[in-house]
Amino acid sequence: MKYCVTGCAGFVGSTLTDRLLADGHTVIGIDDFSTGHEVFLTAALANARFTLVRGDLRDPAVSVDAARGCDAIFHFAANADVRHGTDHPTLDLHQNTFVTVNVLEAARLNGVRDVLFSSTGSVYGEAAVIPTPEDAPMPVQTSLYGASKVAAEAFVQAYAEGFGIRGIVFRFVSLLGERYTHGHVVDFYRQLREHPETLHILGDGKQRKSYLYVGDCIEAILVALRAAPAKGGIYNLGTDEYCAVNDSVGWIGETLGVTPERTYSGGERGWIGDNPFIFLDCTRIRALGWRPSMTIREAIVRTVEWLTEHDLA
Amino acid sequence: MKYCVTGCAGFVGSTLTDRLLADGHTVIGIDDFSTGHEVFLTAALANARFTLVRGDLRDPAVSVDAARGCDAIFHFAANADVRHGTDHPTLDLHQNTFVTVNVLEAARLNGVRDVLFSSTGSVYGEAAVIPTPEDAPMPVQTSLYGASKVAAEAFVQAYAEGFGIRGIVFRFVSLLGERYTHGHVVDFYRQLREHPETLHILGDGKQRKSYLYVGDCIEAILVALRAAPAKGGIYNLGTDEYCAVNDSVGWIGETLGVTPERTYSGGERGWIGDNPFIFLDCTRIRALGWRPSMTIREAIVRTVEWLTEHDLA
Repeated sequence: MKYCVTGCAGFVGSTLTDRLLADGHTVIGIDDFSTGHEVFLTAALANARFTLVRGDLRDPAVSVDAARGCDAIFHFAANADVRHGTDHPTLDLHQNTFVTVNVLEAARLNGVRDVLFSSTGSVYGEAAVIPTPEDAPMPVQTSLYGASKVAAEAFVQAYAEGFGIRGIVFRFVSLLGERYTHGHVVDFYRQLREHPETLHILGDGKQRKSYLYVGDCIEAILVALRAAPAKGGIYNLGTDEYCAVNDSVGWIGETLGVTPERTYSGGERGWIGDNPFIFLDCTRIRALGWRPSMTIREAIVRTVEWLTEHDLA
Repeated sequence: MKYCVTGCAGFVGSTLTDRLLADGHTVIGIDDFSTGHEVFLTAALANARFTLVRGDLRDPAVSVDAARGCDAIFHFAANADVRHGTDHPTLDLHQNTFVTVNVLEAARLNGVRDVLFSSTGSVYGEAAVIPTPEDAPMPVQTSLYGASKVAAEAFVQAYAEGFGIRGIVFRFVSLLGERYTHGHVVDFYRQLREHPETLHILGDGKQRKSYLYVGDCIEAILVALRAAPAKGGIYNLGTDEYCAVNDSVGWIGETLGVTPERTYSGGERGWIGDNPFIFLDCTRIRALGWRPSMTIREAIVRTVEWLTEHDLA
């Protein structure tokens, strides 16, 4: 098959790209390297079945040209910075919502059958039901990131209904593993590398979060590509567990061999729009035959080990 | 008070503008007259407290300039054409989602406290729960119009959370009454004026729809402005009843004194994305003290009488 992967130099996009190439497929990767890392494409660039398109997806022509002849588009390019949304209020709109519609147009104009979209568990805001199923009560958006993603999801659905595209939407918990470069585990890692005795934690450390190992995530995406119904659908992707930020601090410390004194910014939220409890009901993707191979603790340890070996900071 | 009304020459916007002026307020109205009618502003333009801004809200400067010093923005400008969304796939994105974010930016930059946004019952797609409450299970979007509106709602919520704006979102059923110029009642009216003996109906005529008289809608909006909580909220606006398309055909025929032979395009949907059953639970707005004054039948009769007297076709 021939696949287009947007955000191919990112954490998830590059891992997926390597997997698709390993499975014998042809991949057209798109990245503008605003947050992607060229080093993640080292193996891909050595593969004759890989083509790299350097381009900004806000230009509609970029995806229209790249998706020509593709069987599916994996749209994984995004601004993934949840925390600083209010510093640049329209960035999420442009990089997440607008770009997704450009990608949907590229699929429509090229007759691409499948669009697989990386959304987020953040669309549930502060969920009324936990563990949160895909058909949870319509949430209130608490971040510009979540808003931009739920907006993009809506267009994926409308394109599916209006143009017969199979739109598959993934609502991820936070991902961990090799090539993880962004989020609280790397923040803690960097703090402890600078000063192993102290760690400053946003919020009260009691925020409960879910995580998923990136390899398990990629497996789930490929399961959905094979098994999702003709109209597509929405799939939560996570483990059947959660941990407190304080738990993850303990595991990170153990892996690094340090026991920092912890200080807290206080409050049950780390920042405006932070969600004190994320835990998704993943029954739907499990019903397609998928299950995760790694616990949250194992994924955190793996991530810290990778960060220690591959320091990109 | 000083209010900004976008879409001030439209059906709802002009009715609201007249009401706000009658109540003694100052109104800055914005319209690009792409679908608005200047004749609807005849009274407003004769009022010294009204200022008309002719401008396209896709230009961010238009609302930023107009909203300066305003106490609230009523954002009612939209592409309201649900049915032909797939003919121009990105129009709803630009005219409904982007423009709403421009208006939110205008509120943020000018320190405007309240943003009142006209969304739609279409965001519920084919609702799993009927009558549909505001916290219905997360729906699948079936039209680009619905997608663009639920996307805009998400940004209203994120701005409320992130910047302390009070965002009040109204999910309307179809509105009827004076200045109604768009929708199936006017389609039927025009057909019957051309050839009173026959009427062609999209779908099977059994689609069940809800309607609300525009005067009742305006009253509900003003009730919400007075009584909605500091964080804002979402309010369904409709009557506690619905009718079949065939019922409305009967009432229109009676009002016009004709009994046309009916033909049907067939199928339970009139077009891609048409919703065969719309009926909203309006408990929440009623709890603020509002109730409609007119039944659906009365609103349809009033609309047909107005169309007969004021032919804009």
